[in-house]
Amino acid sequence: MPLPPEFHEIARRVNNWGRWGPDDEIGTLNLITADVVRAAVATVRSGLRIPLALPLRQDGVQTGAIPGRVNPLHTMVAVNYEMFGPDTVATSDDVVTMGLQAATHWDGLTHVSHSGKLYNGRPAAAVTAHAGATALGIEKAPPVLSRGVLLDVARVRDGGGDRPLDGAHAVTPEDLEAAEELAGTAVRAGDVALVRTGQIRRYLAGDKQGYAFPSPGLSVRTPEWFHARDVAAVANDTLTFEIFPPEIADLWMPVHALHLVEMGLLQGQNWNLEELSAACASEGRYAFLLSAVAEPFVGGSGAPVAPVAVL
Amino acid sequence: MPLPPEFHEIARRVNNWGRWGPDDEIGTLNLITADVVRAAVATVRSGLRIPLALPLRQDGVQTGAIPGRVNPLHTMVAVNYEMFGPDTVATSDDVVTMGLQAATHWDGLTHVSHSGKLYNGRPAAAVTAHAGATALGIEKAPPVLSRGVLLDVARVRDGGGDRPLDGAHAVTPEDLEAAEELAGTAVRAGDVALVRTGQIRRYLAGDKQGYAFPSPGLSVRTPEWFHARDVAAVANDTLTFEIFPPEIADLWMPVHALHLVEMGLLQGQNWNLEELSAACASEGRYAFLLSAVAEPFVGGSGAPVAPVAVL
Amino acid sequence: MPLPPEFHEIARRVNNWGRWGPDDEIGTLNLITADVVRAAVATVRSGLRIPLALPLRQDGVQTGAIPGRVNPLHTMVAVNYEMFGPDTVATSDDVVTMGLQAATHWDGLTHVSHSGKLYNGRPAAAVTAHAGATALGIEKAPPVLSRGVLLDVARVRDGGGDRPLDGAHAVTPEDLEAAEELAGTAVRAGDVALVRTGQIRRYLAGDKQGYAFPSPGLSVRTPEWFHARDVAAVANDTLTFEIFPPEIADLWMPVHALHLVEMGLLQGQNWNLEELSAACASEGRYAFLLSAVAEPFVGGSGAPVAPVAVL
Amino acid sequence: MPLPPEFHEIARRVNNWGRWGPDDEIGTLNLITADVVRAAVATVRSGLRIPLALPLRQDGVQTGAIPGRVNPLHTMVAVNYEMFGPDTVATSDDVVTMGLQAATHWDGLTHVSHSGKLYNGRPAAAVTAHAGATALGIEKAPPVLSRGVLLDVARVRDGGGDRPLDGAHAVTPEDLEAAEELAGTAVRAGDVALVRTGQIRRYLAGDKQGYAFPSPGLSVRTPEWFHARDVAAVANDTLTFEIFPPEIADLWMPVHALHLVEMGLLQGQNWNLEELSAACASEGRYAFLLSAVAEPFVGGSGAPVAPVAVL
Repeated sequence: MPLPPEFHEIARRVNNWGRWGPDDEIGTLNLITADVVRAAVATVRSGLRIPLALPLRQDGVQTGAIPGRVNPLHTMVAVNYEMFGPDTVATSDDVVTMGLQAATHWDGLTHVSHSGKLYNGRPAAAVTAHAGATALGIEKAPPVLSRGVLLDVARVRDGGGDRPLDGAHAVTPEDLEAAEELAGTAVRAGDVALVRTGQIRRYLAGDKQGYAFPSPGLSVRTPEWFHARDVAAVANDTLTFEIFPPEIADLWMPVHALHLVEMGLLQGQNWNLEELSAACASEGRYAFLLSAVAEPFVGGSGAPVAPVAVL
Repeated sequence: MPLPPEFHEIARRVNNWGRWGPDDEIGTLNLITADVVRAAVATVRSGLRIPLALPLRQDGVQTGAIPGRVNPLHTMVAVNYEMFGPDTVATSDDVVTMGLQAATHWDGLTHVSHSGKLYNGRPAAAVTAHAGATALGIEKAPPVLSRGVLLDVARVRDGGGDRPLDGAHAVTPEDLEAAEELAGTAVRAGDVALVRTGQIRRYLAGDKQGYAFPSPGLSVRTPEWFHARDVAAVANDTLTFEIFPPEIADLWMPVHALHLVEMGLLQGQNWNLEELSAACASEGRYAFLLSAVAEPFVGGSGAPVAPVAVL
Repeated sequence: MPLPPEFHEIARRVNNWGRWGPDDEIGTLNLITADVVRAAVATVRSGLRIPLALPLRQDGVQTGAIPGRVNPLHTMVAVNYEMFGPDTVATSDDVVTMGLQAATHWDGLTHVSHSGKLYNGRPAAAVTAHAGATALGIEKAPPVLSRGVLLDVARVRDGGGDRPLDGAHAVTPEDLEAAEELAGTAVRAGDVALVRTGQIRRYLAGDKQGYAFPSPGLSVRTPEWFHARDVAAVANDTLTFEIFPPEIADLWMPVHALHLVEMGLLQGQNWNLEELSAACASEGRYAFLLSAVAEPFVGGSGAPVAPVAVL
Repeated sequence: MPLPPEFHEIARRVNNWGRWGPDDEIGTLNLITADVVRAAVATVRSGLRIPLALPLRQDGVQTGAIPGRVNPLHTMVAVNYEMFGPDTVATSDDVVTMGLQAATHWDGLTHVSHSGKLYNGRPAAAVTAHAGATALGIEKAPPVLSRGVLLDVARVRDGGGDRPLDGAHAVTPEDLEAAEELAGTAVRAGDVALVRTGQIRRYLAGDKQGYAFPSPGLSVRTPEWFHARDVAAVANDTLTFEIFPPEIADLWMPVHALHLVEMGLLQGQNWNLEELSAACASEGRYAFLLSAVAEPFVGGSGAPVAPVAVL
């Protein structure tokens, strides 16, 4: 079933192809300029560091519903091994097998294609089984370090944010604006927007299935909002990122397609924004320095990331 | 062959056990206080971001000499897969198998033990095949974000740093002091010291064996220097971290044992400091904001990290 | 909670330590002599080959309840890759990550220990995180090729075997004798006994949880029966092999301990005996040539196996 | 560079497409009939079992030259783990990551394609990154259990076979005939031909690079010989199976293409035929029962196998 006309209309309005030249491979990360970095750094007040990654463990967020997207399997290849003989210094070593999109991660620009195309008009065939992403790979992304703004939709919609948004709640531009008002700062070019739905509370409380489905998430109407503000990236605290099941019947993953393919905008999923939400509310500030550098897997369609917010 | 008396003498002088309480699991990372973070942020001038991780690829730095420490094997589990039917949005997904200590990484506090003990007197048996590190795991580490100082030993010893230090060169306290002088700033409590030997140039030029062995690296005399300055962590641009083969016959990996077990100090290896060195020399400044958050593997004896320096 | 006296009494009666010398590492596989092999071959009549392995797939029998025992994750590292240039012969290649005990497999002699000991009195410490089984590893096992006898307990207890035994049904020596009578042949030295409970029908029908738990399986009274007949190995069509939860409160996995540690007898799990059962009933013969050679993983505590019965 | 006319001429002569119907997915394995199995079983005399698989270990035959075809990485996920509490039965469990074509294995029918086609005219696109082989997968193969015939080319060409054939030696139909004469039995329909070059001695002696390249192997002229005799499968003791580098400039892997694509004939590589060669010479018989059942990976382009010959 082909993508409907309304998708193509939005796509046309948010499209960034060619904006940074025909060879561009990093999309909206171009918006994180040195000026933006300096301004981001200048937001730091208390020096409080808040980690946003979920612990990496076999009992992670994946339920098996998406074949191949396996939770981290961490095993030891050495445990106090005396490599150099008895009574010498002993070493312990680990190995892991995991899906790059399995835990707290960035979706890279090749994570989705539509109509045979990737961002900037590259052919979908630039992704191969053999080499992964031969263009637009996550290893091309410059370090994501910019101003972060928490758009705490759960807090503004729930009067406190202790409960996740309902599973049928599509986060709309109006929600984002309400959250922006709470934040007390306008989202601007180069920012990384962190949209909190509270959904991850379900996982943290042990309900993996409830976390996965149904899930609140971004409405197909939000990419235009992000495009108007020229954010560099968007992350949230859900497995699916966008509302799931989708708002429009048979239109699956439109926000992915708009962000990654049309805009060239990195998406973050499974970010734990709970502690950050409490800290922002406590300090009355919702902008901070965000460092969220993707592990540079060559050919990666995404990568794990261990983000930190500094208030 | 038991560890020699001179090891135990140094160990006594640098030991931090109990310093942050009997239950402490993060060692010198305690030294990164909110004040330290604010001061780190204040070093930023140009806003230039420099990534310090090697790309993650199968053709990585491991040669097979250390069994189990495998280079990243990145494979695709989906390539433009139309999960929801023909002509819908298509997804590409990846999975990886890799040693946690295989590429640019932090050694966690359980990576080595000696005399049956880990940092803070925990038994070595706290590391198990089943669960990995049941104490002191890398997931316990708070986000490493602090002031970084480049100690560019290659530059001060080579008059420019275009050549790696000789494979037999043990980096001494005197070398560090010369580099500190070049840096124009005193290394202080909570800093992360990045020690450049230039050795990684061998790998970047395609000589993996030459990179691995022999390798310049830290002398057994340097932990006292780092202890005196109370650095939070130390990283460098070698595979072995310390001089290898070792300075003292049959005393294998003493610096690992002193840092990780006695001091509780994180160690970084395979950091690419080449671009950073050029930038610091160009800007005439060797202190910067460093963000280097370990991927939080539960039970990990270490973790990949994608560090970024902000000048 | 220490193992109860009744366990130790049985253990004493079935113990094979020293029987094949102090250095023996293969236990009851010693019983498959050249004579036994020739007799096994002589059972073949129709030439019908019946595979007994489950297909290896991510949607396998593991439910996640046993950490680390992961279902096979099969990915492609090349898909029609023209390694030698355009229009040349193209190759497809695969890689897999899987638990050695995850699917149809043999438990090797190091898969369990009790009281600090493995088979033949070896210390449990002969299994290490670094090297796996440094003694008694599955790679030491000679090829399992012998006479197989189907003990179709499901058929004799259910009047046809179309229903699995009840989850609370411990297969007793009396059950085995009834099945032996149906088989029309006495189980003898060097035979491999295949005990059918029908439990795997639950998995084949899509009920993975019901397959895993509760499960019919061998009673703690059966090892003496196998010992009296000197079988070389025993396999069945369950995940747990023995009745689970166990017959005797707090006595977990006694059959494993008796077979693997005391007797040195290989155990097979997750063998699909459905087609074999139908064929044996149809031909009126329950003895056949069985080939079930373990993949020779060095240091393996077990291994996948793709058994075939030849009627 | 397109495949040359001489390739297509041979292809036409050996082509089996349609021979077993348009839906056939197992090719020459159709030739192993119940009669063939009975005859295979009847070859057994001494009852001697000889394993033909290399041990599976990280220090395996792969050198890293073929990206993704990784040697087995075997790690422990539990070592004497007392799952049920102190002093109970303890378990050890393993996990492995490995290339399906990395060690002793069968190439399945999708391992190569040419001109966009697989065996029986299926499109090459039947292999996908997501699901692997959606047709012709190795899991479709019935159990390979048939008469094996050792064609000991090394022995007939070297007057004893203690030395491998020269790396530039293409095994020709004439070589096969000389070996067939030594064998004292005509190769016939349904047989599995094991062609010994002795090349694996290089690996067994520690010379992995010498084993890999250059390698003696089958000449492009041999598929017609195998086709004339209607063998069910062919295996040998090399990494590359066919002479490598190839006999005809720019014609890469023609034997793979002829066997797998045109004939639908399984190929085995890295089979250790040394002990078998000695036993056959000693018994003066070169035909035997061969059991070589592929691990049934769903969608696999090949699979590890632990073959056993029974003399």
